[in-house]
Amino acid sequence: MVTLPRPPSLPRALLFDVFGTLVDWRRSVARQVAAAFECSGRTVDALAFADAWRGEYDPSMEPVRSGRRPYVSLDELHRENLQTVLGRLDLTDVLDSDEQAGLNRSWERLDPWPDSVSGLDRLRYRFVVAPCSNGSVALMVKLARHTGFAWDCILGAEIAGTYKPEPDVYLASCAALQLDPEQVMMIAAHNADLEAASSLGMMTGFFPRPTEHGHGQETDLIASGDWTIVASDLMDLARCLLD
Amino acid sequence: MVTLPRPPSLPRALLFDVFGTLVDWRRSVARQVAAAFECSGRTVDALAFADAWRGEYDPSMEPVRSGRRPYVSLDELHRENLQTVLGRLDLTDVLDSDEQAGLNRSWERLDPWPDSVSGLDRLRYRFVVAPCSNGSVALMVKLARHTGFAWDCILGAEIAGTYKPEPDVYLASCAALQLDPEQVMMIAAHNADLEAASSLGMMTGFFPRPTEHGHGQETDLIASGDWTIVASDLMDLARCLLD
Repeated sequence: MVTLPRPPSLPRALLFDVFGTLVDWRRSVARQVAAAFECSGRTVDALAFADAWRGEYDPSMEPVRSGRRPYVSLDELHRENLQTVLGRLDLTDVLDSDEQAGLNRSWERLDPWPDSVSGLDRLRYRFVVAPCSNGSVALMVKLARHTGFAWDCILGAEIAGTYKPEPDVYLASCAALQLDPEQVMMIAAHNADLEAASSLGMMTGFFPRPTEHGHGQETDLIASGDWTIVASDLMDLARCLLD
Repeated sequence: MVTLPRPPSLPRALLFDVFGTLVDWRRSVARQVAAAFECSGRTVDALAFADAWRGEYDPSMEPVRSGRRPYVSLDELHRENLQTVLGRLDLTDVLDSDEQAGLNRSWERLDPWPDSVSGLDRLRYRFVVAPCSNGSVALMVKLARHTGFAWDCILGAEIAGTYKPEPDVYLASCAALQLDPEQVMMIAAHNADLEAASSLGMMTGFFPRPTEHGHGQETDLIASGDWTIVASDLMDLARCLLD
């Protein structure tokens, strides 16, 4: 993959997408789904369950984005979406409410991609780093303690009261750092996230996570926009920004 | 100083006051005041200047607390208060606007008390730790990078849009962690801060910083309320919570 040279003016802070970009949500959730159903006597395709659960993610945020529903945390949406998926698979009665609550906490225990912790640590030496995720502050704190991500602060959806890619999420995150969008780089393995950030004037950094959705993944394998930096992975992006 | 035993139920998170409790604002600001005026040919009592500047702190927040003024960051209030103090001492023309802006950044470079970094690190091993300060998110980020404070997230005035001791600051900070006030301990070297937190049901931890206001300090030398933990310093408080 071609690595572009360092941008002419360096960002003052780096905002990161988290799910998919820094953590392998799919295999992490599937592992915990498999554990939750292990003793139930019911056969569950754990990866398909994880995909179905995540499939409800975007539609469940839409009423909040459009203003039809007041902001509720992603933890609550994950809870509702879990019940949707359990119902669809006729599994509602297999897990009691405590077990469902435990399974919902899968999202607090997602494993980082192999380069995420070291890449963030390298970048944090020089830049302010913060998540700009749809996850709540509480979820990002728990996930950071699970993974070892050393954030300067937690930004993103909750401080804006809506969800990406709504402009307010990016703008409120930059404003909390007292920086203009032009001084901040959004980093994600998802082109749509960078499209939204770029349209607000932010710098953008892309690298692919080609197995986020499994080995048959067809989306976000390459940069589809004119991003400030296109790298092969997080360590490559760190080299572009630090060398 | 008598150390009370560990509280019967441990908190899930610890919120910290910062100015005075974790950093020695007075001598840090005075040092930077002295440097700012060094080449001006004007004699300035740097400690008295720091005291005068900080003296405007509480009154300047009052219009925001009462709702008469929309929330503005503490950085902005510090800027306004600096101009007030410069005017009162007939020093307005001694520093140009860049030098005034530079001096205002003193609050980003406050030195920690000797036990603050190690005490926080010890506590963070077991507890979620966050500032619940009147400082902005941006100021807390810069101060953490200066001092080495390793926070899990930045909470406090800005996420509530008002200033301590208004209840919303404590309540919004607990809510961001998805915890009830009863599950969170507020830690401060100031009895008034703990009074406000305690009235909302939070646990409280006190230790004195007997030279925050200099060697003649007469306030907050001892606990004036029935706090959950009263310790001699931060390391002592860490022992109470961890042993």
